[in-house]
Order: sequence, then C-alpha cells, then structure tokens
Amino acid sequence: MHIDREILKGYLLEDTGRGDITSEALIPDTDSYAEIYAKDEGVISGLEEAAFIFAYAGAQAVLTASDGETVTAGRKIMEIRGKARAILLAERTALNLIGRMSGIATKTNRVIRKIHSLNSGVRVAGTRKTAPGARAIDKKAITAGGGDPHRFDLSDAFLIKDNHLVLCSAAEAIRKARDYSAYKKIEIETETPAEALIAAKAGADIIMLDNMEPGQVSEASMLIKNAGLRDRVIIEVSGGVNANSLESYAVLDIDIISMGALTHSVRNFDVSLDMKPGVKNFKIHI
Amino acid sequence: MHIDREILKGYLLEDTGRGDITSEALIPDTDSYAEIYAKDEGVISGLEEAAFIFAYAGAQAVLTASDGETVTAGRKIMEIRGKARAILLAERTALNLIGRMSGIATKTNRVIRKIHSLNSGVRVAGTRKTAPGARAIDKKAITAGGGDPHRFDLSDAFLIKDNHLVLCSAAEAIRKARDYSAYKKIEIETETPAEALIAAKAGADIIMLDNMEPGQVSEASMLIKNAGLRDRVIIEVSGGVNANSLESYAVLDIDIISMGALTHSVRNFDVSLDMKPGVKNFKIHI
Amino acid sequence: MHIDREILKGYLLEDTGRGDITSEALIPDTDSYAEIYAKDEGVISGLEEAAFIFAYAGAQAVLTASDGETVTAGRKIMEIRGKARAILLAERTALNLIGRMSGIATKTNRVIRKIHSLNSGVRVAGTRKTAPGARAIDKKAITAGGGDPHRFDLSDAFLIKDNHLVLCSAAEAIRKARDYSAYKKIEIETETPAEALIAAKAGADIIMLDNMEPGQVSEASMLIKNAGLRDRVIIEVSGGVNANSLESYAVLDIDIISMGALTHSVRNFDVSLDMKPGVKNFKIHI
Amino acid sequence: MHIDREILKGYLLEDTGRGDITSEALIPDTDSYAEIYAKDEGVISGLEEAAFIFAYAGAQAVLTASDGETVTAGRKIMEIRGKARAILLAERTALNLIGRMSGIATKTNRVIRKIHSLNSGVRVAGTRKTAPGARAIDKKAITAGGGDPHRFDLSDAFLIKDNHLVLCSAAEAIRKARDYSAYKKIEIETETPAEALIAAKAGADIIMLDNMEPGQVSEASMLIKNAGLRDRVIIEVSGGVNANSLESYAVLDIDIISMGALTHSVRNFDVSLDMKPGVKNFKIHI
Amino acid sequence: MHIDREILKGYLLEDTGRGDITSEALIPDTDSYAEIYAKDEGVISGLEEAAFIFAYAGAQAVLTASDGETVTAGRKIMEIRGKARAILLAERTALNLIGRMSGIATKTNRVIRKIHSLNSGVRVAGTRKTAPGARAIDKKAITAGGGDPHRFDLSDAFLIKDNHLVLCSAAEAIRKARDYSAYKKIEIETETPAEALIAAKAGADIIMLDNMEPGQVSEASMLIKNAGLRDRVIIEVSGGVNANSLESYAVLDIDIISMGALTHSVRNFDVSLDMKPGVKNFKIHI
Amino acid sequence: MHIDREILKGYLLEDTGRGDITSEALIPDTDSYAEIYAKDEGVISGLEEAAFIFAYAGAQAVLTASDGETVTAGRKIMEIRGKARAILLAERTALNLIGRMSGIATKTNRVIRKIHSLNSGVRVAGTRKTAPGARAIDKKAITAGGGDPHRFDLSDAFLIKDNHLVLCSAAEAIRKARDYSAYKKIEIETETPAEALIAAKAGADIIMLDNMEPGQVSEASMLIKNAGLRDRVIIEVSGGVNANSLESYAVLDIDIISMGALTHSVRNFDVSLDMKPGVKNFKIHI
Repeated sequence: MHIDREILKGYLLEDTGRGDITSEALIPDTDSYAEIYAKDEGVISGLEEAAFIFAYAGAQAVLTASDGETVTAGRKIMEIRGKARAILLAERTALNLIGRMSGIATKTNRVIRKIHSLNSGVRVAGTRKTAPGARAIDKKAITAGGGDPHRFDLSDAFLIKDNHLVLCSAAEAIRKARDYSAYKKIEIETETPAEALIAAKAGADIIMLDNMEPGQVSEASMLIKNAGLRDRVIIEVSGGVNANSLESYAVLDIDIISMGALTHSVRNFDVSLDMKPGVKNFKIHI
Repeated sequence: MHIDREILKGYLLEDTGRGDITSEALIPDTDSYAEIYAKDEGVISGLEEAAFIFAYAGAQAVLTASDGETVTAGRKIMEIRGKARAILLAERTALNLIGRMSGIATKTNRVIRKIHSLNSGVRVAGTRKTAPGARAIDKKAITAGGGDPHRFDLSDAFLIKDNHLVLCSAAEAIRKARDYSAYKKIEIETETPAEALIAAKAGADIIMLDNMEPGQVSEASMLIKNAGLRDRVIIEVSGGVNANSLESYAVLDIDIISMGALTHSVRNFDVSLDMKPGVKNFKIHI
Repeated sequence: MHIDREILKGYLLEDTGRGDITSEALIPDTDSYAEIYAKDEGVISGLEEAAFIFAYAGAQAVLTASDGETVTAGRKIMEIRGKARAILLAERTALNLIGRMSGIATKTNRVIRKIHSLNSGVRVAGTRKTAPGARAIDKKAITAGGGDPHRFDLSDAFLIKDNHLVLCSAAEAIRKARDYSAYKKIEIETETPAEALIAAKAGADIIMLDNMEPGQVSEASMLIKNAGLRDRVIIEVSGGVNANSLESYAVLDIDIISMGALTHSVRNFDVSLDMKPGVKNFKIHI
Repeated sequence: MHIDREILKGYLLEDTGRGDITSEALIPDTDSYAEIYAKDEGVISGLEEAAFIFAYAGAQAVLTASDGETVTAGRKIMEIRGKARAILLAERTALNLIGRMSGIATKTNRVIRKIHSLNSGVRVAGTRKTAPGARAIDKKAITAGGGDPHRFDLSDAFLIKDNHLVLCSAAEAIRKARDYSAYKKIEIETETPAEALIAAKAGADIIMLDNMEPGQVSEASMLIKNAGLRDRVIIEVSGGVNANSLESYAVLDIDIISMGALTHSVRNFDVSLDMKPGVKNFKIHI
Repeated sequence: MHIDREILKGYLLEDTGRGDITSEALIPDTDSYAEIYAKDEGVISGLEEAAFIFAYAGAQAVLTASDGETVTAGRKIMEIRGKARAILLAERTALNLIGRMSGIATKTNRVIRKIHSLNSGVRVAGTRKTAPGARAIDKKAITAGGGDPHRFDLSDAFLIKDNHLVLCSAAEAIRKARDYSAYKKIEIETETPAEALIAAKAGADIIMLDNMEPGQVSEASMLIKNAGLRDRVIIEVSGGVNANSLESYAVLDIDIISMGALTHSVRNFDVSLDMKPGVKNFKIHI
Repeated sequence: MHIDREILKGYLLEDTGRGDITSEALIPDTDSYAEIYAKDEGVISGLEEAAFIFAYAGAQAVLTASDGETVTAGRKIMEIRGKARAILLAERTALNLIGRMSGIATKTNRVIRKIHSLNSGVRVAGTRKTAPGARAIDKKAITAGGGDPHRFDLSDAFLIKDNHLVLCSAAEAIRKARDYSAYKKIEIETETPAEALIAAKAGADIIMLDNMEPGQVSEASMLIKNAGLRDRVIIEVSGGVNANSLESYAVLDIDIISMGALTHSVRNFDVSLDMKPGVKNFKIHI
C-alpha cells in the first residue's frame, strides 16, 4: 500500500515542532551511525516508512529486515548513516511508526495463526476503527501481518448498516447500490440468520453477521448454503469476537472474521535506536 | 489544549475519502437525531473534537457530559441533530476520537488514582510515544485524565539524552542549553544515582532517572536531597514502570512518573451511536 | 458524491489570484442580485458546487433547478444575493463548474438515451481520463447524467491490464488480487474472446473487452454464457466505441460500455450570469 | 510558464488515491522501460509536466520531442526507465496531462494557422474558461500552441465589464483603475462601435469588442482609427467567433481574437504508453 | 486587495502553536469585551484582517475606524466581544497585523504628502522587497496609504533588468515580451538617459530610471519628451531615493517613485488591546 | 533552529506567482553563475535559508560566509551556479530572506554589544512582535545575532499577563500553571516592585518587570534579593527600553532585556546579487 509522502512528512513535523532545540544547541553535527533493534518478537512493519523519514531528515537508512518478516528480540532491523542532528531529528517519529505498525502486524498475525491452526479457509480483516490520522499506516500494517485491510474509507465499497435499513429495505438498498456503480462491492450488515438469508438472496456480495453467537453464525451459513448461494457470497463475522471466542468462530463455514481491536487497541512493538557516533570509541560524559 | 481545526478536518477527510457512497446512493437525506452512549466506565475525552466533526459535516451536537468527567456504561454523552447523511458521514470519525481519547484519559486516570492512594505528591506524565498523526489528541487526553502532557515535541523543552552526552559533558550541555534560551526548561536523562547528582549540581531543572530500580531511585533522590538541591529540581522516573512495579516507585520521594504506555498501548473506550431518524416509530427493513 | 470543500476552495483561489482588482478598484460594494441561466439544452450538474463557491465568497445562492434535471435553454437555474464584489469574485468559477459538469452530464445522458432506445440493460461508465484536477467533479457529473463513475482512482478496485499480465498469468493475478482483499472488485482487460473466457473462468468479477469489434464482443459474451458464467461476471466493452459504432455494441449481450470521451473531450454547456444590481432600474454607463 | 510543483503532485495524488493496489498486489517491482507515442497529429504540450510526474513517482523520463513541437501519429515522444510500479503509478496522470495539453495546443495552433493564412497580424488568445483545477496547464498549453494566454486570474489586469459599468461610467472606471496601479493593463468590454470609441478616448489599453458582428467590428476599428487612436489601443474581438465565422473576423483591422472554446471544449490528443518490461522477450500471460 | 483566508489563518496558527496554554490553564472562559487603541498618529491598515482573525478565533470585532483612515493617538479603532480565551488567542496576531500594516500605510502616506506638496502628479510605489510571508499584507498596506502596489510577483508584469539585457538587446526583449502576451505591461530598467530613450523608442510601457541622479533623471525625461514619447511611457524613478533626496526628484517630470524601504524597513505603528472582562469593576489580583 | 521546508517553499511561491514571465519569455536558459555581496556591515543571517531557496529552484549555492558571522560591506557571502532562469526565479526571495534576517541579527547584536560593554551578565531577548508569516525566520535571526528567541508561540511557556490577573490572583495563577505541566517555565508580568516580590515568592520562574523605570527595576531586584530569591528567578525587563534608556537598565541587577523592536521595526541589511552569465565577457545590450 502506497503511503502518500505528505502524510509521512506530517508525522515528522508533528514531532519536530520548531526544531530539535536540544541537538541544535548542544552538539556538533558530526557524521554518525545508528542501528535500530527489535526488542520484541513479532512481525515487522513500518520499515519503509521509517526509512523515508530518515531520508527526508537527511540521513540514509538501510533495511536489514523486511516489512512482513517475523523477527525475534535482538534482531537488527535498520542501519542509519548521516549527520547526528538528522538522525536525532527523525528518531522518535521513525520508532513510533515501526512500534505501532509492527504492533498491529504482530497482533494480526497471531490471530491469523490461531485461526489457521483450526481452519485455513478463514481470513482476518480490519475495520475503520483506527487511530485518527493513522488510517493509512494501520491498514498497511494489517496487510503486513497477513490480514485483509477491509474498507479504507466510506467510498471504498458499499456497507449497508442498520441505520440505512431504517430508511429502505435490504432488497431496495442492494438494488440502489448496484445501480450506483458496478465497480464497488456491496456488503450488508445483518442481525439474524433470517436477515442474512434475505440479504444473500437480494444479491449482496458480502454478508456481515453482526454480533451473532457461533450458533447463529452456523445457522446463517447453513441457510445460505441450502439456498445454493454459499459460493456467491462472502460471509464476514464481526463484533464480539475476542481471544476467548475466536476458536468457536474459526471452525465455522465462514470466510472472514473482522476485528476492530487489531487497530483500536494496539500494544506497541518495542524497538530502540542506538547511536554509534561515527568513530570507534565513544564514552558518555556526565 | 487547543487543537488546530485543520487537524480535525483531516481526520474526517481520512475517513470520508471520495464520500459516503452508501448513504448517498441509498437513503433520503431526512432530518435525523442520534445519541452517543458510553459502553465502558471511565474518563471521557474527545467530546469537543467530536462535536466539531459533526458541525463541520453539517450537524449540531450537544454535549451531555464533559471532557474529563467520569462516566459509567450506559451514560448518554452526546445528542446530535441534523440531516441523516451528515450524521452518518461524521459518525466513525467522531467515535474514533472519543474512543481513543477516552481510552487514554481513562488509563491515565487509573494510574493516577493508584499512585495517589499511596502518595498524593507524585504526578503522572506522558511521553512522545503517541500514534503517528495523533500527538495533539493524545496529549489532550492525558490532560483530561489528570496527567501532565510532558513535551509536545522536540522544541518544547531541552531533554539531554545519552546520545547528546556522547558528544559533550552534562555540565557543558546544561550550560549550552541555558545560553540558548532562558525560556525553556532543561531536563537530563541519567542512568545512575551518581549521574543524577552531577546533573542536579550542574543546574538541570528536571532530572530523569531512566530505567532505575526503586532502590536506585531512592538513592538518587537521597543524594540530591543531601546536597540541598531537592527543592531545586524535579525528579522524574521513567522506563520500566508497569502495573506491577508502579507501587514500589509511587512511595518514593519523587515528583513525576512518565509512562509511554499511556499512549503507545491504548485500549479503546467503547462508545456507540444510535440513529433515531427524526420521527417516533422507525423499523429496520431487511 | 461528496466533494471535499478544500477542492472547491482551490478552484476559487485559482481564479481569484491576488483578488479581483477590477471590482475592488472600481465599484462600490452594494447589495446585489444575480441570476444564472442555461443557454443550452441538457442535463444540469454543478449547481451544488457553484452554490458553495458563492457561499464561500460571501453571497447566498438559491437553486431553481436540480442537479441531474434536464433543462432547456433560457431556464433560470440559480438566484444569487449578496454584495456585488462577492458575486463577481465567484462568477467565473461558478460558471466554469456548471459549464463543464453540465457538459459532461449532458453528453453522458445522450449516450445513455441512445443506448437505452436499443437495449435498456446496458449501462454507460466513465474512465480515469478526466481533466487534471477535475476528477471529483467529472465523476460526479457522470453520475448526474445517469452514468456509472467507474474507478475513481487506482485504489478503488483491481484492474488487471496487459502490463500486469506481462509479469503473471491471468489466473495467478486474479488469485493474488483476491488474496489481497475481499472488499474490492477484480476487473481484467482482455484482447480476445478466448482471453475473456479464461478470465471469467479464473473468477474475475468484471471482464473488460478491450478494443474488440462487435463480432468479437458477441463471441466473447457467447463463450462466457456457454460456460455458464454469464451471471457471474459483468461484461464491459471499452475502447473504440464512438458515435458511429455505438449502436452496434448497444444491442449485444453486455453490461457496460465505458467511454473516456465522456470526460476527456468535453463540450461546455453554455450558461451565463446576469447581475441585476439591487434596485429596479439600472443602466450601463459607457 | 512555471507550474508550481504542488499542483502537479496534486494531480498524481488525485489519481493514486490510497495507492495502486493492482500493481502492489500482483507484480514484482522489476526494472522496466516504457515509451510514450503520439497517436494523433498536432502540437505537443505537457511533456515537462509528465516528466515531473514520473520523476516524483521514482522513474526517469527522457523527452524525445519538445513541448511546442508539431508531431505526427506514431512519433515517440518520451522514454521512461524505472521500477514497474513507479511507471504504472504515474502512467494515467502523465497521459492525461499530455492528452489535454496537446489537445489545447493543437486546437490553438490550428486556429492560428487558419488566421495567419489570411492576416499575420492577428493573434489568438485564451480566456478564463478553463477546466476547474487546470488553469495553469491550460494556459501553458495555449502558449505552447502559439497563443496568448490572456489574463491568468482576476488580479492580472483590469477587465471592466458590463456589470461594472452598471455602477460607474467607462471614463470613471478607467480613471479609477489607473489610479489603483500603473502596472496593470486596463481592458474594457464594449457592446457597440460607439462604446468602443468612447473607451478608446478614455484611455483604455485594450478594447474588447464583445459579441459584435464583423461589420460592427470593422466600424469600431475604423472609428478608433479615425480618432487617431488606433496605435494606442489593442483591439480584441471576443464572443461568437467559431469555425465558420473565424475568417470573416480574421481579415479585419484587429489585434486579437480570444476564444473560450480553446479550453472549455477540448478534444484530447491521443497518446499511449507501452511498457517494455526491462528484458528482451516478454509475453502476456492470460 | 482580497487576502486569501488561508494566509490569515496561517498567521494565527503561527502564533498559536499547540494552543494558548496560559489562558487554558488559568482562567475561566467568561464573556469578555476588549478594545484596541491607536497609540501613534498615522494611517490605519489591517483592521479587516484583524477582524477576520478574531472571527476565526470565535470572537466578534466591530471596526470603529476604517482602513485607510488617518487617526491620532488614543483613537479607539476596534471593539471585540467574545469569550476571554478567544480574544486572548487572537490578540497578538491581530495587533501584529495592524501594527505592521499601519506602519507601512503611514510611512507610504508621509512620503506621498511630502511629494504632493511639491508635485501632485507623482505617485509612490512599492517593490517586491517585502517581509517573507507578508507580501499580500504589505502590498495592501501600501494601497491603504495611497501608494501603488507595483508588481505583486514575478508573473504580474514584465520587468526587464540588467540580468536579462546581458542575454538579449532591449529592443529584442521588448518584442519578445509583447509576443508573449498583450495583457501585461512591459517595464525596463535603464541605467543612463540614453538607455532610457532607446527603451522608450523600443516600445516599453514603463521606463525605470535605476539609481540615476536627479540631473540624469531630468535629462532622461527630457530626451523622451523631445522624442515625442512622453505621453506614451510611464517614467519610474527607483533606487537611491531617501528622505534627503526625495524632494529633488519630486519636482521632476516623472510619474512614479518606487521605494523598497516602504516595506523592507518598517517601523511598527503602536496599538494596544485592553481587556474589559465582561462586567464593570474589575481589579488585577497579584 | 530548524525551519520547516514548507515555510521556505511558501516564500518562494509567494514571489513566483504564476512564474517568472520575463525570464521565460526573453532569455535562453543558459548555465550561469552569480554572487551575492553584503553592502552593509553587520551580522549575517539567512544564508542557509537562501541556499535552500536556490536549491529548490534548481540551482546550487555555496556559502562563503556563515550565518552568525560579522561581515563588512563588499564581502562575498554566497556563490550560485545553475541555469539562468533558476537563479533569477529565486533571486528576490533569497535576498529578502538574507536582508531581513541579517537586519534583525545585526540590530540584536548591536544592542548586545552595547549592553555587554557595561554588564556582561545581561541577555537580550525578542518578543512575539514579528512580521506576520516571518516568526520562524525572525526568531532564528535573533539567535544568529546572539540573542534569546524568547517564546516562539503561545504554547511554549506560561506568560501570565494583566489580562489573566484580572480573573485570578498571581499565586493561584502560578499554582494552576504548575499543575498543568512541570515542563514549561512560568513567567509573570508585574507592574510594580511589590508585585514583583509577590510573584517571586509565589514561585514564578521568570519575573517580567513591565514598563518600569530604572529606579523601580532596581527596587524590584533588591526586594527579590533581600527575600533570598534572587538566584531562584530570572528577572526580565520589558517595555520602554530604547537606544537612550538602554544603558540605564543595562547596569542593573537583572538577567534579560526583551525588545519588540528587534523584529517589529527592522531596517533591512543591504545585499545584492550579481549575475555573471557563464562565460567571461558579457555585455548588457540596451
């Protein structure tokens, strides 16, 4: 997923403010060298973005791991060469990018591996519950972890929700959506197995089973199958899926489980940058 | 903390993309009414920002709770009136703002209450480990939870770290910082009680005790006190403080505990919006 | 289709430059009234955008026609009230919006009416061949004319072209696209009826028949039908369709005809604004 | 004419959206080579802008024709080297720029050649009737075709129109404009030969004869000449000039014919890009 | 002169940073009232811009003087009503605008009055030597003071300087400029009376006499007059005009004196804002 | 101080407008060489910014002096190589930057030298009275001249003014500020020596003595010293300090004198650029 450079520049500016007064006031701008290390185990994401940040600040980064790769704690994932002030200017922004994105990629990947140990046919997808300002990186991190990014924004695909169904029937909604454009998928939120069947018959591409118990999900899937529509629709389970209930859903005849928690409740992946200032021996003076 | 309107508009645009095709294609743009409810217990934050989002989209929000207030699950926190499409356009952005900000405010507040049960003189502060693009709202949410936002960016205050001390001594660094400007505080990172004492003697305003064990922290504080400098400096404990170790630090003679986890590892506060489309009786058509 | 306000403001600024020096230097800023008239027959589009431009400049517009409505020459389509300078500042930008968008809507609509006179089951779609900077308004105008906007940009849907097929087979491409996300449609460009059949079997959602003669299109459609896949795919004819050949394609068993000329070769719809300066009798002084 | 880079970047982003998902999901990012060919005959424009787009996307373009040059169908006008994804990301934006700008340059040039075959002393100028968002490129394309760009925006020169003359006399308007600034030309719109004479006497730099028949134009020009003012003013004919009437105006004693149709009713110049993926033999896999 | 709102918003943001932490932390957001007073004598400018700043911050300003009006010290020039925090947020930005703009308007006006006491036919113009970021307001302030803003930027008019004349002759330069566009004036910089005459003969609209002594200026003017071209050209004196020499130039047969010092060496006009917090009696608590 | 590139690009665009029509229409784009010379004596500032402007326009600048260095008239301070049009495009913006910034740096430095001849312990600081749009460069120029930039904007530090003290007492204000954040200094404005003492006792970091006579300043300083607080606070004198009174303040027991005039009333430092077009002998053709 291509992330617009202006977004990344904005992240750096957000942390830079009026400039890094500490480095400017205190230190000579010597040629320097730094390394970034993983301090957790998981799937790395955000290296390309971090490298751009260093480049924009005036330093050169070389990736020693790849986005999407699984690493263990202690792995060196990036080397940076440049002036000391450039590296320090970009440090926190780069680490925040890798930390958040790898946190999301790792969480996504863990869920997927758990599901695939039971059923390799079920995918994991994100939602639009991302951190404000972080939509692009959060979605890219899900992809890095092996997940499906789902809708990026309100214009990506139709998603017919209860609030729309207050004002028109499912069949009418699907027809109107299809009339609007043939180039967007049509997803519909359903609350009961019966609704799911109606939606599948009405021609939705994706049937979201919202907050249904495993038993209901199973029933919805069966109704759709019995109607001969199972290979015409994608069945997405959403809502109420957590670490405990995940396995009960994973074994069912569904296609996707979508989880807001992949991006709205993230645990940062720990990374750190070590400056090695140019020359061999250096010593901290306190 | 005043959040620049352009940042908030950017959050809405990030979720809007080319427009809410579902609402535009499907539903009439009727006068509508909606409510937002808390589904967790905690400290609310983000209501002002959410209200701006609705206003910018063309709907009017009335706050029925205040930012910084503690609420319980089920509490109605906002009422919105406007065209259906305006409300639906803004919904997810508004909820994401309240969800993340209240999650941070709630976590901050829990840590503070735990500390204050032991020592009312210790404050809790954030760090710059925020989600990319969310610095302003993350810092404001910490304030809503009762915390100290700490440095907003690299230009707010001097923070002399090991990477700087590789290139000049603590005393020289502090002198240079003071020469640069009298209007910014000078903080310095120290690794041992001895370093902390040196830094205090050199005239730093804030002594950060980085990754020290409670015993070391206690020793550093004592050394500074014995040197007659305790009321001249602020002592900040940073690194390695977690739910388990929090109490061991809270009881010491320190001023601030700063924690990156307040913003880098957030659990969303759950909120939901219920549309009540204009008139009394409405029914979902599936 | 919701058009981001910043885009519209940008259009006004593009025409304003450093300000309307003529009005500022010459005329008193009196309360004024103006009307916009259609001078052609066709489908109107751009009224909402023009009204925003006037509002942003400080005047109030009332629509006396609706976007998507068919009008005849002489029809009053908008009334504007406000200070003379505000109206004159916005005039050209507003007229350019209505002129271009109505031109596109009218052309789209004429093609559709021609096709529907032969076959009501075939739709007309745009392409990405829009004027630089005008993507959003060009797509909205197509919708106003009754057309399908097609992909808005490169992230809307998969469109597998010859340049991609140089590097992987159709089947592999479709599988990779499906693995990437279940929420985007997969379209593939084919050059021969045989390729079209392969693509349909491989599971593409939309088969584009690129630059095929009517006979080839007919054959492609038949092959797909005979394979029992006709109701599984959308067949789009693209390239080489013009006023002369349109009818030969319209009668075939296809779903969509897409035409770049709807937006890349536009004839403006003529509209004009008449100032009626506040009071009843006014006279031009030369 | 220098086109601000931010405008060009905006054109690319408009087409990129969240990124080229097809190329990202499907193909390896191999070193590639592509060529752009003219498929029409006419005056090329937009090559510099297209080259910038490729450069910004990360590929290198070499121009094999020049902006302003007349080419025939089949002429190779650009070579591009770079990663496959970079080339494909920029392709449509680059082609849209060349297509529209060359279309305008070609049309402008055809009108000029037709006029000059009759009267080499008459110039052709554009108007502000450009596509929203395309002012800068539309004006540059007119220049490439040999035309005069006319006012770029409302601050470029004074243009006194009927709406201004409702509120003050021509003489007063010209005096006020002159008092405002000596560095801007003063043009005035006139409806009759008599008005044209009044305006010339009042000291306008440019007299626009708006929607006058050839006979009236001839009379206006004569009146001005007889008053000894012909070499003091520029006479611009505007409105109602089309392919049929062009010649009747071209032979008169005037200086400029301005035509909105040069930019408001454009027929794209056809160009195409052929990828030649790096190595010698490549084959499309369907 | 219309100043783009985004420029003015940018000025406020420049002073606001992350928000007015003092007001947010310290004071209740009560309804308040404030007044702005002139503390110098001179020509006021910037009131409209200051009023916009207050409005954008959420307060309402009423002008009690007009831009361009001459005021004496002690004159109340604006009243503001709104929340205390809104007024304080906007205060410094508003005062900086009025201070700089009135300083420029006042200086411009003093020069004009001095010149007009000797020769009412000579105008005063600015240059492009404005403060970076302040071009629009600096030019508007010159206009408020009665001056001519001269070129706003490099695209406003042709100004042929020595650096251009190194590469082509004056006659060729003027011809090329005229060929480029008939809608822009052509000014040329000359160093001697002889050059001035050549330039006038070549058809320049404006002859700049650059750094010439009064005697040379007089000679240049005479040469042009004797050639019968005096009423065909505008003569601008530029460079080396200061308080001492101004009168020697003012009495000559010239049209304009342009002075960079009007904007590059400004003395702020002193203004102050007095808060009168809502109710009658208030007292400062220290 | 790091100046955001977007600010500098904005300065160039402000002067460029639609492009440098003179150079584009008139001259061939030959390889060229230019030099910038100081024409005044003083402290140079703005060279880094000017070099960026040339680089962004496509030319290469080499600094032959350093920001902060004292130069005499005639000193070559920069060499530029590049295409003629690139150099001419950037010329005025670059000179305006150096002119204003060196003007501020020179004035700041003169004040400092005057003060230090009497008392080396007193610093000079700026204020927020900068030109709109020029905050970043004005502050950097003060630093280049040896001064203290003071608050950059409203979020840098607390500055409690009379308008705040209307609504709460000094002691309460200082306590609230301290509660808000430990990372920002707290300054308070006082009008009398007695108020200054109260503020010092209440724990302010910086005591501003606003518009006090030298005698009052002396008394305030003494009161604070006698209370044993002199080494706890920074004493800043502000308001009413001018060339005449400067010495009376400089000899007192204070820390800082802040002066708005450093940036609100600037006299440009004179610099000029000489084009030396590529080859040895060149001659101006008029």
